[in-house]
Parts: sequence; structure tokens; C-alpha cells
Amino acid sequence: MWRVGKEFNVNVAVRKAWDAIEALQQPTLGQLFTADPDRLGKLSARLDWPGSEDMGGAIFDWSKTHLDDDVLAAFEALADASDFAGRRAALLSGAAINVTEGRAAEHTAQRGIGAEASVEEAAEFHHRMHLLVDAIHRGALGEIRHLIHIGIGGSALGPKLAIDALARDGALVEVHVVSNIDGLALEEAFAAADPATTMVAVASKTFTTIETMTNAASALDWLKENGVVDPYGRVVALTAAPDKAVEWGVDETRVLPFSESVGGRYSLWSSIGFPIALGVGWEAFDAMLAGAHAVDVHFRDTDGRANLPLRAAFADQLYTRVRGCQTRAVFAYDERLKLFPDYLQQLEMESNGKRVTFDGEPVEGATAPITWGGVGTDGQHAVFQLLHQGTVEVPVDFIASVAPGDALDPAHHAILLTNCFAQGAALMAGGNMSADGKDPARAFPGDRPSATILCDDIDAATLGALIAFHEHRTFANAVLLGINPFDQFGVELGKKMAKDIEAGGGDFDPSTRALLEAAGLSA
Amino acid sequence: MWRVGKEFNVNVAVRKAWDAIEALQQPTLGQLFTADPDRLGKLSARLDWPGSEDMGGAIFDWSKTHLDDDVLAAFEALADASDFAGRRAALLSGAAINVTEGRAAEHTAQRGIGAEASVEEAAEFHHRMHLLVDAIHRGALGEIRHLIHIGIGGSALGPKLAIDALARDGALVEVHVVSNIDGLALEEAFAAADPATTMVAVASKTFTTIETMTNAASALDWLKENGVVDPYGRVVALTAAPDKAVEWGVDETRVLPFSESVGGRYSLWSSIGFPIALGVGWEAFDAMLAGAHAVDVHFRDTDGRANLPLRAAFADQLYTRVRGCQTRAVFAYDERLKLFPDYLQQLEMESNGKRVTFDGEPVEGATAPITWGGVGTDGQHAVFQLLHQGTVEVPVDFIASVAPGDALDPAHHAILLTNCFAQGAALMAGGNMSADGKDPARAFPGDRPSATILCDDIDAATLGALIAFHEHRTFANAVLLGINPFDQFGVELGKKMAKDIEAGGGDFDPSTRALLEAAGLSA
Repeated sequence: MWRVGKEFNVNVAVRKAWDAIEALQQPTLGQLFTADPDRLGKLSARLDWPGSEDMGGAIFDWSKTHLDDDVLAAFEALADASDFAGRRAALLSGAAINVTEGRAAEHTAQRGIGAEASVEEAAEFHHRMHLLVDAIHRGALGEIRHLIHIGIGGSALGPKLAIDALARDGALVEVHVVSNIDGLALEEAFAAADPATTMVAVASKTFTTIETMTNAASALDWLKENGVVDPYGRVVALTAAPDKAVEWGVDETRVLPFSESVGGRYSLWSSIGFPIALGVGWEAFDAMLAGAHAVDVHFRDTDGRANLPLRAAFADQLYTRVRGCQTRAVFAYDERLKLFPDYLQQLEMESNGKRVTFDGEPVEGATAPITWGGVGTDGQHAVFQLLHQGTVEVPVDFIASVAPGDALDPAHHAILLTNCFAQGAALMAGGNMSADGKDPARAFPGDRPSATILCDDIDAATLGALIAFHEHRTFANAVLLGINPFDQFGVELGKKMAKDIEAGGGDFDPSTRALLEAAGLSA
Repeated sequence: MWRVGKEFNVNVAVRKAWDAIEALQQPTLGQLFTADPDRLGKLSARLDWPGSEDMGGAIFDWSKTHLDDDVLAAFEALADASDFAGRRAALLSGAAINVTEGRAAEHTAQRGIGAEASVEEAAEFHHRMHLLVDAIHRGALGEIRHLIHIGIGGSALGPKLAIDALARDGALVEVHVVSNIDGLALEEAFAAADPATTMVAVASKTFTTIETMTNAASALDWLKENGVVDPYGRVVALTAAPDKAVEWGVDETRVLPFSESVGGRYSLWSSIGFPIALGVGWEAFDAMLAGAHAVDVHFRDTDGRANLPLRAAFADQLYTRVRGCQTRAVFAYDERLKLFPDYLQQLEMESNGKRVTFDGEPVEGATAPITWGGVGTDGQHAVFQLLHQGTVEVPVDFIASVAPGDALDPAHHAILLTNCFAQGAALMAGGNMSADGKDPARAFPGDRPSATILCDDIDAATLGALIAFHEHRTFANAVLLGINPFDQFGVELGKKMAKDIEAGGGDFDPSTRALLEAAGLSA
């Protein structure tokens, strides 16, 4: 029911919707504000979720993008033609929407929305994890002050982001996330941890990821060399392959499973979230789930442009497909969200960096843009030059918080926010900074788009809500593109070639052979 | 002499060179390797510099890019038409090549190449800095174990990169770089430092940067609140405006000046490098200068395609202007270079993210691409999906080191390098990973370009050489584009608008007004 399929009618409807979008006028932002006095009211909206003090939420403002009534209506037609409602229902009911791998994508089940059995299973797994976290906090494994969390990609980026965002006032257990196979990454964790009070979490969906298993072995060696008699007794496994973890040597009581249907880049809600719960407490992890759940409900129950993740996807498609933007930028004006652009990079690029539809047809036009960014105000002094005066259009998302994270002079936070808003204003307005207003080197073309997400605060619920918002935005983009966002076959070829090199096999090009030789390795 | 100017002949020559480039055939990488058995020999080269043990160096391999004899020859013609040799001579002789600001760009003078007076002045400033660093190391200011280095943009990214790369085995003084106005950044440094043994460096070319001056004031408050009787006695100023620093309260003996002609993003070679010298020692800082100097000499004395930074710029222009790539990616397969992509992002985007030529004419076509990236193998598990199977061409630079930085099982480093080379091979080769070779979801188009820089090791000289290589590559791109890479007026408009908001003035759009109101600020 939810498949767009190859049926002629549906494809024709999708094509007609795109044609209508591409045929629209493209007024400037200035013209758009002039044309519609109620533009701000129409294009900004507030979304609420349970916050640390009663309710929290955020304002989402797309009025400084090139969306308007006509564009929104045209994209609503595209969403209808793409059976957005049907595919959303399939996602949220646990249908096997990941068609190339023949399985569901059940991250929302972790937050309480999905197939009943999956929601129940997720709750059981959470309960098991909660018990283990509590036991460790109560000293069941002795004094534990450090956790070396070993995982890569989706097994690392979520925990890293959440801990960096939420543990700034001190962690219950200090978490050191190690992802890279480069031994320097692990050595950095060793230098910061005390072996006598250190646990190791091994996070791998398949429990075969080469980086993770190599790092895990070296971490156990380190514990042993530093006097820990039973290093395996210090290991927790976070995996969808619990048998493999037990086989590897982890005691069953410390294996925290999650479902095969939870994708790596959507896994921090599952037992991959263990380091979050251990580091900042179960309540914080639970608040993240609650914030995400609130966004799930909004996404499920709201239609058309009023659905904010869908509206964000309309803007994404407008810039990527219609206006030819190969990138989108995200600047967090808050140190607590310093790692959020990195997190989004994986979420969006690994999900939608595809070239065929879920029917295996070539996608006509561009799929995912490259997500990049950083923190403000730092970015202003590094890369904003190109945003203002370069030759390429880059839609920018600004994310900020009304409440400060710091306790210094309020001037710090006021300057931070003022700069954030001033950048969006300047990108749109343009102008000329020279005395006579004529120096072309000091001219700003303006009409450069940005959206702003202004949160009440950055607490655990807000972090969960922001992540869920972007998960659904990514899914909505995939629906509009007609692609499957839940596989990632693009990682396979390089893996195979690396294995071929190790095995001494494979037929490599002269450049690769020469590099291997120069490095003292052989193909 | 070095100005391309508006003279008709020169512009005609440039246009003809571009036409010739655009008219070239564009064979695939596979076809290029087949067509020329000596392709690798022609497109890879080694460059040497003084290393930590005798000589070090790196292999630069562009054979997996779409450069070939014809493309190189056509770009050499463009370089001639753009008076590359003349502009390079102007740069290296201290001519006022930054035309919009009427001054020279004298970062190479810091490394011994430039106008005689500038080279002498740089040496004197270095000497002054060396004496102060030695004095602090010897205890002249009491026990100093921490340096809070406050600066933003070019005053932060260089020191951060160098210290992260070179101080992994322990620092002489622990350096905490604080850039963001968000008070959380400074609080993080406070938490890691001990006020009794902490110095503060205030790095600002103009000594007026609002982030830096606000953070500096808060850092002094913190010292005072924590029992330091004379906090100003702990401050070192790194600035091109020494009078302002003295006026602000820094004792003259601890003001380390640098020349107005050293641009922010080229300033780590000047006294902005103070935290590097204090943290990892004068010898390391000096080795960075020596590595950069070796690349300067190569860049000065080599012509055409044999000039490696120029050759890199040929590839950059091919992808950006001819093949329509809006980005280029840099992945460092070494944790020591983790911050290198961020560093390059500023260097390249702030330098060449422009839209007018140095004569003030609109640039025809694209200028700087967006530089983005990260570390390998992490990136493989996050964003490489899009590189392999997305719809956008992204030229990738891989940077790696033959010598490992870690002392763990050599398997770590072998897997790291194997994966690096396998990714380049896979991007080029393509293929299909399904059993029958026909599943479109598992198909890789291949023909995706990458270049590899394989260093002997990542020591201080190599870091200096890598940075200088990219500085000259950026300059070479600017010459081919006919733009001035040394101004950055794009940052001015946002700054002015922020000031207008603070002053309660300015005429802002409804969106900006609403955001200010929601944040409790007023326009």
C-alpha cells in the first residue's frame, strides 16, 4: 500500500508535481516579505515537548527561506503524489519499509510508537538496560568512574553528542568514546582513564565491525596489563547479535541487545544509548526518549505544511533539486550542540546519499546534499565569508537556545544570540559596506536563505526532540525522492577492497599498488 | 607588473585558456589509466623537507583525479595567461598584493622568504617570543602548567591544530584554546585548568575582537575570584596592535607583536604561534617553520605542473569550474590531523569564497568550493555512503602517514592505511556488490576522483609543510580565478548588524525582530 511502485499513474503524478514545482516563479526573499505581510506567521511555528521544567519547545522559522504559499502547495501535491501519508504509516507501524534489506526501521518503537510487539520488546530491552545502569551506579561492579565506549559511526556519534551536550555540569561516570581504528584514539582514552575504575562498552550491531573489535581487544589488553585480573568482567556489549557477544567472551548478564530493525544511525535510542544513561543518568536518557516521542506524535498526526519535519524537507528539496544547492549548512550557536552538525551529517548523508529509487530506478536529479557546518560564533570568523560573498547558494540552519548553558556574565549569551540573528538578517538583506556604497569587494548580494530553530533550552528532552525532528525530516526527504533511506550499501565496496588487500588478493590499480608499497603493505 | 588588470589582451588570453580547458574531452579515470601506462609516474611526485630524523617528506598522488597531460597543459596556459609567475613573485617579495586593503601578505616572511625588512622584522619578533617562552619555561612567572589561549578564527584554529597534532605525548604547558563567545567554552577551560598555575594569552590582530575581549575579561575575573592577586601579570598579548594591548592593561614586556601584513588565517607562523611554542616547545615551532620554508622554496622555484601546490590548484579548478563540484572533501586518516579539515575550511573558504576579481569585476563561474571532511576510518561509517553512491561528484583528498602515531598493536595502523587506500581504489573502480552483479541498490558507478598525500610521518616539520602546501594551493587557485584571497569583507555586514542590534538601532526584517523578542533581546 505504501509503495509508490512502478505503477504508471503514480509516477506520472510525481513527475507532474515536480514539473509544477519547477515552473514556479522564484521571487527574492525581500519580494516575498513585501508580498505577504503575514509571511512570518505562516512560516514560523512553535513545537512543544516535555521539558526539564514542565514543557519546553522551540520556534522553527522558515520565513527567511524561499518557501511561500505557492511553493508549499506544490510540495504538498508532491507529498500526496509520493504517498507520504502511506509511507509514514508504514514506517510508524513497523512495516518492512527498508525494502532492499527486507526489514522494518523501528527507531520510533524505542520511543513508544510502532508495532505493538516491537514497542514491547524495546521497553523490555530498556528495562534490562535500566537495571544494569542502576546496578553499576550502585557499585555492583565495584567503583566505576570511567567508561571507554567503543563503537564507530552510528554506535559512536549519538552517545558522543548526547554526553557532550548533557554532561557539562559533571558526569556520573566519565565516558570516553573511541571510534577510530587509529590507535591514537584509544591511547587518548587510556591517558584519561584509570584502569582500576574503568569499564568498557563494546557497541557493534553485528559484533563484527573490524574497528570496534580491534579496539575492544586492545582495550582488554590494556586492562590486563594494568592489573585488572578479569578484564572480560568489565565489559558490556551493546549489540543486535547477542550470541556473537557471548561467544566473544561477554557474560550474558552484561549483554544489552537491541533489535535488528534499529538502524545504526538511528540506534542511540536503543541499548547503544547505554553510555548516555550511565554517564548522565537514566532520567536524562528517558527525557530524551520523551522529547523524541513528542515529535513522533506531531509527525504522525499532522498533515501537509503544518507537519514541521515535512515542511523542512520541502525547503531541503527546493534548495537541492530546484535551486541546485549541493550542500546545506547547520550552525549551532551553542557549545552544547557542538557535535550536532557531525551527527546530522551521518543521519542525512548516509540515509539519502543514494542514486536509485526503492524500485531500483535511477533517481532523476540530485538526492542528499552534503551536510556541513559547525558552531557559532566560531564559524563567522572562519567560513561565513563564503556564505556571504561566495558564488554558491548554501541554505543555512541556525540552532540556538534562549536559556544560556553558562553561568558567566550574561553578556556572553546575549552576544552569542545577537550574532546568530544578525547573520540570518545579513544573509538575507545584503548591502554594501563601503563608504560610497559602490565598492564591489564590499558588496553583499543578499537573498541568501536561512532557517532558525530557537529552543527554550538545550536539555535532554530538547536534544531528543531535535534529533527526532531531523530523523523525520530525513525520512520525509526520502519519501519525496522515492528512495530507501534505511540501507547503506555504499559502505560495502571499500570494505571488500580492504579485505582483499589484507588477504593479499584483488586486482588493484597502479596508484593503489604504489601507495601500499610506499607504506610497506602489500596488495 | 603582476596585476592582470583590465587590459584587454590579458583578459582575452585568460578567456581563451578557459575555453580551451572547457573544450577538452573528459575521459573516465579507467580510460585515463589505460591510455597512458606512465600515468602514475607523471601524476605522483615526492616532496621532501627537513624531518625529525634527517629528511622527511610526502608522496602527492593525483593519478586518481581527472588530470592528464592535456588538462595539465591547458591549465599551464591558463596560469601563464593569469601571470602566475608574476603574482607569485609579488607575493614572495612583499608587494601590496592585497589590493583592496592596500597591503602585502607576508606569511612567508615569517619563514624567511619575503622583503628583506619584513624577514628581519619577523625574525626579531620570533626572537622576542622565543625569549619569553624560554623565560616562562624556566619559571620566570612562577609555576605555569596551563595556558588559556583566547582567540577566534585564525587566532584559534592554527594553535588548536598544531597542539592537537604535536602534543599527544604530553605538553610542556597544557594549552586550552577558547574561541566561542558562548560562556560554555570558557567554562570548559576553567574546569580543566588550575588558576594558581594558569596564564592567559589574548590573541587578536586588532585587539578589538568582541569574542576575544569579552572572554579575556571573564578569564581575568576568574583568576581574580580564585585568588590571583595580579591577574594582568599573567596575561600575554599576541597582536598587531601592541598599543591597544598595553592600553588594555598588558605589560609591554608580555606583548608579542606581529605585522599588520600577516593575515589572520595565515598567522600561526607569527606570535599567534606562541601557544604552540609554549605547549610543545620552541624546537617544534621552529621545525614547523622549517617545513613550511621547504615548501616555500619549492613553490618559488618550480614552474608549471611540477609545482605541486599549483598542480593541486589545477585539480581544484577542474572540479569546481569545469565539472561543477560545489565541494571538496578532505579526510585525514590520522588522529593527529583530526583538526586539519577545519583548518583548511577557513584557509580556503575565507580566502577564496569571493565573487569579484581583484579588479572588482564579477567572477564568471564558481570561486571556492566548500571544504569539508573529517577523519578516517570514522568517515567511512558516517558519510562515505554519499561519496560512493550519491548523485554529486566530490573530489576527495586523503592524507595519511606511513609511520604510526600510536604504540599499540601494529594491526591498528595497518588497518587504518589499508582502509584509506581501499577507499580511493573503490571510489575509482566502482562495481556491483550483489551476488548476480545486477542489483542497482548495490551498484557503484565508480570514476569518482581522489588524491592522496602520504606523509612519512606527522612531525612538526610535516605539519608546517602541509599547511604551507595548502596556503600556496589556495593562493594558486586565487591567481587562476583572478581574485584577491587576502581580504575578508564578507564578515563585516553581520558584525555591523550585530552592533546595530546591541545599539537598539537598525531596521530589521519581521523574522529577525521576532527572534530577538523571543530571546528577550530587542532590536
